[in-house]
Amino acid sequence: MLISAIPRIGTLPSGRCDAITDVHSVAVGHATLADGEVQTGVTVIRPHAGDPFLQRVPAGFAVLNGFGKSVGLLQVEELGVLETPIALTNTFSVPAVAAAQIRQCIAANPECGRSLPTVNPLVFECNDGFLNDIQRMAVEESHYLQAWASAGEDVAQGAVGAGRGMSCFSLKGGIGTASRRAGTHTVGALVLANFGLLHQLIVAGQPVGKRLARQPAEAEKGSIIMLLATDAPLDARQLRRLALRAGAGLARTGSVFGHGSGDIALAFSTAYALPQRREDPTPAVALLHDGLLDELFQAAADSTEQAILHALWHAESVTGRDGHARPALSALLRELGSP
Amino acid sequence: MLISAIPRIGTLPSGRCDAITDVHSVAVGHATLADGEVQTGVTVIRPHAGDPFLQRVPAGFAVLNGFGKSVGLLQVEELGVLETPIALTNTFSVPAVAAAQIRQCIAANPECGRSLPTVNPLVFECNDGFLNDIQRMAVEESHYLQAWASAGEDVAQGAVGAGRGMSCFSLKGGIGTASRRAGTHTVGALVLANFGLLHQLIVAGQPVGKRLARQPAEAEKGSIIMLLATDAPLDARQLRRLALRAGAGLARTGSVFGHGSGDIALAFSTAYALPQRREDPTPAVALLHDGLLDELFQAAADSTEQAILHALWHAESVTGRDGHARPALSALLRELGSP
Amino acid sequence: MLISAIPRIGTLPSGRCDAITDVHSVAVGHATLADGEVQTGVTVIRPHAGDPFLQRVPAGFAVLNGFGKSVGLLQVEELGVLETPIALTNTFSVPAVAAAQIRQCIAANPECGRSLPTVNPLVFECNDGFLNDIQRMAVEESHYLQAWASAGEDVAQGAVGAGRGMSCFSLKGGIGTASRRAGTHTVGALVLANFGLLHQLIVAGQPVGKRLARQPAEAEKGSIIMLLATDAPLDARQLRRLALRAGAGLARTGSVFGHGSGDIALAFSTAYALPQRREDPTPAVALLHDGLLDELFQAAADSTEQAILHALWHAESVTGRDGHARPALSALLRELGSP
Amino acid sequence: MLISAIPRIGTLPSGRCDAITDVHSVAVGHATLADGEVQTGVTVIRPHAGDPFLQRVPAGFAVLNGFGKSVGLLQVEELGVLETPIALTNTFSVPAVAAAQIRQCIAANPECGRSLPTVNPLVFECNDGFLNDIQRMAVEESHYLQAWASAGEDVAQGAVGAGRGMSCFSLKGGIGTASRRAGTHTVGALVLANFGLLHQLIVAGQPVGKRLARQPAEAEKGSIIMLLATDAPLDARQLRRLALRAGAGLARTGSVFGHGSGDIALAFSTAYALPQRREDPTPAVALLHDGLLDELFQAAADSTEQAILHALWHAESVTGRDGHARPALSALLRELGSP
Repeated sequence: MLISAIPRIGTLPSGRCDAITDVHSVAVGHATLADGEVQTGVTVIRPHAGDPFLQRVPAGFAVLNGFGKSVGLLQVEELGVLETPIALTNTFSVPAVAAAQIRQCIAANPECGRSLPTVNPLVFECNDGFLNDIQRMAVEESHYLQAWASAGEDVAQGAVGAGRGMSCFSLKGGIGTASRRAGTHTVGALVLANFGLLHQLIVAGQPVGKRLARQPAEAEKGSIIMLLATDAPLDARQLRRLALRAGAGLARTGSVFGHGSGDIALAFSTAYALPQRREDPTPAVALLHDGLLDELFQAAADSTEQAILHALWHAESVTGRDGHARPALSALLRELGSP
Repeated sequence: MLISAIPRIGTLPSGRCDAITDVHSVAVGHATLADGEVQTGVTVIRPHAGDPFLQRVPAGFAVLNGFGKSVGLLQVEELGVLETPIALTNTFSVPAVAAAQIRQCIAANPECGRSLPTVNPLVFECNDGFLNDIQRMAVEESHYLQAWASAGEDVAQGAVGAGRGMSCFSLKGGIGTASRRAGTHTVGALVLANFGLLHQLIVAGQPVGKRLARQPAEAEKGSIIMLLATDAPLDARQLRRLALRAGAGLARTGSVFGHGSGDIALAFSTAYALPQRREDPTPAVALLHDGLLDELFQAAADSTEQAILHALWHAESVTGRDGHARPALSALLRELGSP
Repeated sequence: MLISAIPRIGTLPSGRCDAITDVHSVAVGHATLADGEVQTGVTVIRPHAGDPFLQRVPAGFAVLNGFGKSVGLLQVEELGVLETPIALTNTFSVPAVAAAQIRQCIAANPECGRSLPTVNPLVFECNDGFLNDIQRMAVEESHYLQAWASAGEDVAQGAVGAGRGMSCFSLKGGIGTASRRAGTHTVGALVLANFGLLHQLIVAGQPVGKRLARQPAEAEKGSIIMLLATDAPLDARQLRRLALRAGAGLARTGSVFGHGSGDIALAFSTAYALPQRREDPTPAVALLHDGLLDELFQAAADSTEQAILHALWHAESVTGRDGHARPALSALLRELGSP
Repeated sequence: MLISAIPRIGTLPSGRCDAITDVHSVAVGHATLADGEVQTGVTVIRPHAGDPFLQRVPAGFAVLNGFGKSVGLLQVEELGVLETPIALTNTFSVPAVAAAQIRQCIAANPECGRSLPTVNPLVFECNDGFLNDIQRMAVEESHYLQAWASAGEDVAQGAVGAGRGMSCFSLKGGIGTASRRAGTHTVGALVLANFGLLHQLIVAGQPVGKRLARQPAEAEKGSIIMLLATDAPLDARQLRRLALRAGAGLARTGSVFGHGSGDIALAFSTAYALPQRREDPTPAVALLHDGLLDELFQAAADSTEQAILHALWHAESVTGRDGHARPALSALLRELGSP
């Protein structure tokens, strides 16, 4: 028996749901497309229930490997804020989802691009082309809106939303989430896990993959998007520091941030918001002292590692394009006589 | 008389056409939409006549102000190459053009996103919402293909292609190009100029704008994309250095890289190409010594400044959305008794 | 007559002294070594009268050209604060001045490097090896302390302090300062100007250098350090944005950020301070809205351009190592029949 | 029994000595100061036997946490080369070692800082203030020269050179090295390990630290320098990518890149050198295709993790300043009844 239950990472306590939505006001929704050759979808993370274009939350990010096609990071780097919900989808559907974000913002803000600035779409992606006919570009703007409208506190995990067609450690990957408490603050992680070869998989320190792997490895072409939310009062610089620590959690699962991969982490804070309109007053914020970040850093690494394990654990087996299939980790373990 | 002819910047000689296409193998095409409220378009720069996905040219970029929605730079930073033509359009049409680049690459490379990596669309933008009904998202994928197909050595300037609806120094802006020779090498610049307030305009050192400006300035919300091509054998690091010097040319026209602005410069070299397929041999390249870059830096600054002046000089007056109008610099000078 | 008085840059008003010390609490001091082959020194900028290690001011920087040996920027990037005064000196004297900063901090904070973190020296440099026997490494720790102790509101300019041996546009360069008011806030600039060839010099838009230059140019090997202070409440991200605009002022004097050059701009705010000790409360700060930065950006560019002109204007002719000499701009103009 | 022998990380083979000197032409030397309150030193890594100022090797780096005082990285970022040996020492001795590098370069190149550029010292540091009286600044220029002169293929590990006073996981840390073969190429790692709290320590996936830790943890204030050498023909961009993968190895030992820490990785290639003098021809280099980097990335992560374990394993117990002591891992295991 290799693993009979999903191991718990680290010693920090989880939030109520062990999910990114343990950070107050964060909501997650999915739209899943699962029909033969089309195995893909959209996932939306809303930082708060208001209009993120008018009430922009601070954000920072770290690029561990930039072989990726995510859009919106240029402006996040310059201005240090989000101004849309965060969307996840497959690589070739980024334009459709970005267009949906633009139209949604215009609908809510008729002066967007006129007396108000243009909006900055923020769409992350992984390549699900093994299971999904990615060339079909099946995701439409309506799917983004559907995911957005369904966003709530309960987060479905595994082969759902943008995670529908993703592979991870040659197994079925996808969406995973987790949270950790650091003192009075919470850090929540949500990952889109689409990386790694089976022989590389480490589960809570155990080289599980080496024991499961039975065939020569293909080349690593995967990637991972790691999103962190926190209610700690941090600014863009501090959030960039927090985001980078997701990479420590990722490395502990066996990744070496392979070449053919977009490995990106973004962190945002819900503790305050910065107004779009310069006529509106900016809030007076007492930031957390950098000297108090260490426990948040541990929470970022641990919740990310846990979220990756959750993605593997909750994913069901999927067969898609050209009969390509990815087994669920749970199925593989059952096959081997694990419970 | 303020200016009777367009001044020549600097002392370096120009190439044959004083255009980016003086760099061998570079071609430029436009698709222009000019119909009432719709005043916009697409411009395409092809680094060479082959498939840029298979034969990738080295590239580097500098972000002077990242308040912008261009896509594709994340991967250029990581891998140091282009793999599509460079496209320019309005801010809200970026998704349509990116989708067109993806479909074009799939058509030419049926294994794109399968056994070959996904392609990285590269689309730059400025906000032409003053003259153009940008919310209509009028640019379609066919316009990208039309611009691509029409690409050649002759470069139309002013209110054409992506430049159709752009404003510059409260005048009609748009597309401008120029080139300079630096020893045996050529540097060519092409700009999409959409920045600045009239009173800021400096023409070859003269504060022309201060004399022309008759009304209080609106707030600066513009931006500029500056593209440099060279036949010098440079790598991504050196091309990033070259790109930054476009900012010196920009500053000399009166810009201070205003807040509400995406000011981005990208440089690429046509001296060699790096193969997409790892089975293909990489070329042996003797790079230019960094100690020999100074003349290229001067050429980058001078050709950029010249290209901005060309954009102003060649632009015709345009009236667009809600009757908004931008006068041509030439018209304004005529009005004031200049030739 | 080329120029009879130093031109005033831009339309924004200056502060009381047209100096960086117009920003309340900022003080500047010099130690000058001028003895035959030794023509060099140290300049110190104190952000406030307190201990900068305990009360750290926010800071950000932009590297226009990184061919330089300044120390301390790594940590400024990560933490977004200064924790020493800013020191300027020649390239090979950086270690001596950094050691002086460490010893000064230990003297004031006996727990530095023990229960308190180690201190981050911040020393910028230019190469004054044309006029100064830089290999002698003549600056000693006592010179740093002397500059520090002499810091006050009055700022000597030209061939003083770190500027003693510097060359600029093949003329005598050195220290210059200026300030501009942007609404209720002030931006002050102080430069260590050591760049450019005579034929490149542009004074307030006029190609003065072209008319003065009488001999073929040597290769550009210079550099410039540009320091900005402001009393506007900005954070590290915004200060990085402000710092970059110093580059626009620099470009307008004729620089193209030449290869052999360390062109670096750093901006700090005196509006608030962040405590070193994590036990101390962080202040609640309402930052300036980014949408209000444009006038500050203009002030940054204009005060930098003005400070460079001040450095040239105030410098006296100096003869140093091996009889090398740099004429003062004023002397050159007199020679040519200017007043 | 927790661990009876040092575990071997990963499946790639090691080079002949399992040391960074398995990369041809790399040599390592130490100067160790061990006398009561003074427990510190210098370590020097020479990329090749020639003059690195004239024959500069390509290099790139990744900053995982920039709370550090290393000098020289600004220019490595801009120019992509080393021009001195790499030196390691304690935080407050950086200036002395940088001065030694300057003097050494001047001695070998009398035109340094005159007709040749100034030299860029490259000194990395960690804070050994727990065991060492760091305020004494005991390292002198002669110690650098001594370490340099003693450099050879055999690499002493543990409490030697710059590692003499370093702590790691609340144990005695210091210098460790390892190497891995990736196809026909070798990657070697050398670390200066000074990070982590005992309860965080993970040895080859096992949470050894949790079992060893008996007292509440102090705050993490450590750091780590990770140096990678390779004989693969990579450029600065690729070497930056390689360097970042050292972070994956670091994370697997239990680090989350804590706040109070300078966690920096630098990689260089010995496959070719770039001349200092622009008169000298640059070599024609066929770089490794990025698509072939994955095995090198694995080698970088594995050799770094192994090098950290080597540092712990080879370190002897040290007592220093104020009677502070750090036990050797081997001693602790013996105490607990392990062999």
